[in-house]
Amino acid sequence: MDATVLHAPGDIRLEQVPDPQIMAPTDAVVRVVASCVCGSDLWPYRGISRVSRPRRIGHEFIGVVEEVGGEVSTVRPGDFVITPFLWSDNTCAHCTAGMQSACANGGGFGGPDRDGNMVDGCQGEYVRVPLADGTLVTTPGQPDEALLPSLLTLTDVMATGWHAAVSARVRPGATVVIVGDGAVGLCGVLSAAQQGAGRVIAMSRHADRQAVATEFGATDIVAERGPEGVARIMELTDGIGADAVLECVGTKESMEQAFASARPGSMVGFVGVPHGAEAPMGQMFNRNVGLAGGMAPVRGYLDELLPLVLEGQINPGRVFDSTVPLAQVADAYRAMDERAAIKVMLRP
Amino acid sequence: MDATVLHAPGDIRLEQVPDPQIMAPTDAVVRVVASCVCGSDLWPYRGISRVSRPRRIGHEFIGVVEEVGGEVSTVRPGDFVITPFLWSDNTCAHCTAGMQSACANGGGFGGPDRDGNMVDGCQGEYVRVPLADGTLVTTPGQPDEALLPSLLTLTDVMATGWHAAVSARVRPGATVVIVGDGAVGLCGVLSAAQQGAGRVIAMSRHADRQAVATEFGATDIVAERGPEGVARIMELTDGIGADAVLECVGTKESMEQAFASARPGSMVGFVGVPHGAEAPMGQMFNRNVGLAGGMAPVRGYLDELLPLVLEGQINPGRVFDSTVPLAQVADAYRAMDERAAIKVMLRP
Repeated sequence: MDATVLHAPGDIRLEQVPDPQIMAPTDAVVRVVASCVCGSDLWPYRGISRVSRPRRIGHEFIGVVEEVGGEVSTVRPGDFVITPFLWSDNTCAHCTAGMQSACANGGGFGGPDRDGNMVDGCQGEYVRVPLADGTLVTTPGQPDEALLPSLLTLTDVMATGWHAAVSARVRPGATVVIVGDGAVGLCGVLSAAQQGAGRVIAMSRHADRQAVATEFGATDIVAERGPEGVARIMELTDGIGADAVLECVGTKESMEQAFASARPGSMVGFVGVPHGAEAPMGQMFNRNVGLAGGMAPVRGYLDELLPLVLEGQINPGRVFDSTVPLAQVADAYRAMDERAAIKVMLRP
Repeated sequence: MDATVLHAPGDIRLEQVPDPQIMAPTDAVVRVVASCVCGSDLWPYRGISRVSRPRRIGHEFIGVVEEVGGEVSTVRPGDFVITPFLWSDNTCAHCTAGMQSACANGGGFGGPDRDGNMVDGCQGEYVRVPLADGTLVTTPGQPDEALLPSLLTLTDVMATGWHAAVSARVRPGATVVIVGDGAVGLCGVLSAAQQGAGRVIAMSRHADRQAVATEFGATDIVAERGPEGVARIMELTDGIGADAVLECVGTKESMEQAFASARPGSMVGFVGVPHGAEAPMGQMFNRNVGLAGGMAPVRGYLDELLPLVLEGQINPGRVFDSTVPLAQVADAYRAMDERAAIKVMLRP
C-alpha cells in the first residue's frame, strides 16, 4: 500500500510499504477514507523535533473496518469508524477515569504496540489499529460525504480544542481568550462558545482564520500580539483579564500571552505541544493562575462530540480549507508549513 | 511599642518603634493578642530571600480593635478580629470573584499602603490595618483563650492549607497526598479530610508531626522521600497515583515529589512560596497533571472556616507546639529554623 514517510526535515514522501496485517487478536485493520496533516506533524517536518531516521507519520484518520482480530467484539468489517489519535484499552484505571490519553496499555500511531510491533502512521491507505474495542467508535451507518471533514476533526483537533476549554474550566457566561488560530485554536473558539462562554476573544492576524473564528462563535478578534495584544485584552476586559484562557500553540510567546491575559483565580488550558513554553511559577503563585491540559482524551470526549456533529450542531470541519489526493502529501505539508492552508485533508 | 525587626539573615530583634496611628480614614489600629512565626518568614531569616535593609516582619495576628478611621463602619473599638495575611478592599473585581489575595487595592503587612506609608509587621504590640472594612473579620464577642491558637491559624496557615486542597480539587472519597509537614502541610491534611477525602496520605519523617497529621485525619503516613517516596505512594495507590496532591513546601524536590505522586488528569495544588520549584511542562502535558494555587484568598475562606473553628469542628491550633513571650521572638525563629517546633505563637 501507499503510506507517508518522513525521511528528514522537509523531506516527506509517499512510498510503498507492506500492507498491514492483524498481528494481535485485539487488532483491527481499517481502510483510510480520509486523513490529514496536524500542526504537531510540522514539528518534525520543520526539524524542531529530531528526525533520526525515516518514520511513518500521521495520527488522524477516519475509515472503514476491513478486518478484525478474534477478540474484537465492538466493531465489524464494514463499520465506519472514528479513530482517536491515541489507541487505548478504555478499561484501565486511567481510561475509566476519563483520561484515555494516559491509558496504561495505550500508545500512538507510528510507534510500537505492546508487543513491540510498529503501528502504521495514518497518512496512508490502511492502518492497523491496536486495541480496537477500546479505541474505535462507530457511526450509525455510512456517513454522508459532507460530514467527513467534521468527523475527521473529532480524531484530534476538535477534541483537543474541547479539552483546552474543559481544562481552562470555561463556564457559562465566561469571557474566554483563545491564543492560537490554527485548527486547534479555531476548534477552541468553537468549544468555548459551545460550552456557554458569553464572550469569546480569538487572537488571530489572518483574515481567513478570523472569518472561521467568527463563524465558530468568536465575539471579538484581537490581531495584536505581545504587549499590544495583552493591552488589548485588558482593554476588552475592563482591566480584569479573562475568566479562562486556551493556549493552543505551545511556544514561549504564546504561553506568555496566555498567562498575561488570565485574571487572578483563572486557569490556562494548554494543548499545544510544549516547544519552549514554560510555566511562570512566580506569576502563577502571586496571581493564582493555574495551568492544566495536555494530550486530549479523545476517546472519552467522542461520546459527547460525535452526536453534536451527527446532529449538525457543530461544524468543525470548516477548519479544512484544502483537500488533496494522498499522492500530493508533500504539497499538503508545504501548504501547512507556509500557512497557506489552515488544515489539509488527504484522500487516498 | 515593641515590634520585631529583621536586620539581616539570622539577626532578628525586638525593638522600640513608633506607635501606629490612623493615617487614612479606612485604617484601623489593632492591639495584637497573639501573633506567630510563619514558614515563609524563614526564607529571609535564612538569607534565601534577600534582606537589603532592616525590615519589620510578621503577617499573622489576631487582636482587639483599638481605634478606627472615620470611614470604617464594620468594626469598632473593642471588637475581636481575625486579620488575613493580606489586606484587601473586598469590593474590587478580584475580591468579589473570591480572589482577595489579588485585590486591586490590597497589599501585605510590612509593606507600603496605597499612599506609600509603611504598614506595620505583625510580630509586635500594635498593627495599623489598611482597608479595615474589607480586611478584618470579627468574632461574636471575645473568644475563649483556648480558641486563640485555632483562630490565629485562620489568618494564614489553615486558610492556606484549605486553599491547597481547593486548588487541587479534592473531591469526596478522593485519595489525597500532602507533600510537606510544616504547619501548612498539616493544615492541608486537615483540609483534605474536612473536604471529604477518603484517603489522606501525609508525607512526614518527624514523629511529632506524624502525630498531628494522624490527629488531623491522615489515614497513611509516608516517611520516605525521593524515588522511595514515589514508590511508596504508587504502592499505596495500586500504581495509579493520587487523585489530588497538595504541595506545601515550594522547593524543587517537593514539587517533583508532588507531580510524581499525581495520577493522570489530577491537579497539584501548590501553596509553598516557590523557591526553586518548577513546573515540569512535558510531564504535565503527557500525563495531564495540572498545577494551581498560590497566595490563599484568606478573607474569602474566613466565612466558611471561622464557623468551623467556633463550633469546634476543626482544631487547627494543634499546629502550635510552643508559645513564647514576644520578647523571646529570636528564640521562636531559632526553634522554627531548627525544626525544634512546628509553629511558635508569640504573646505580647
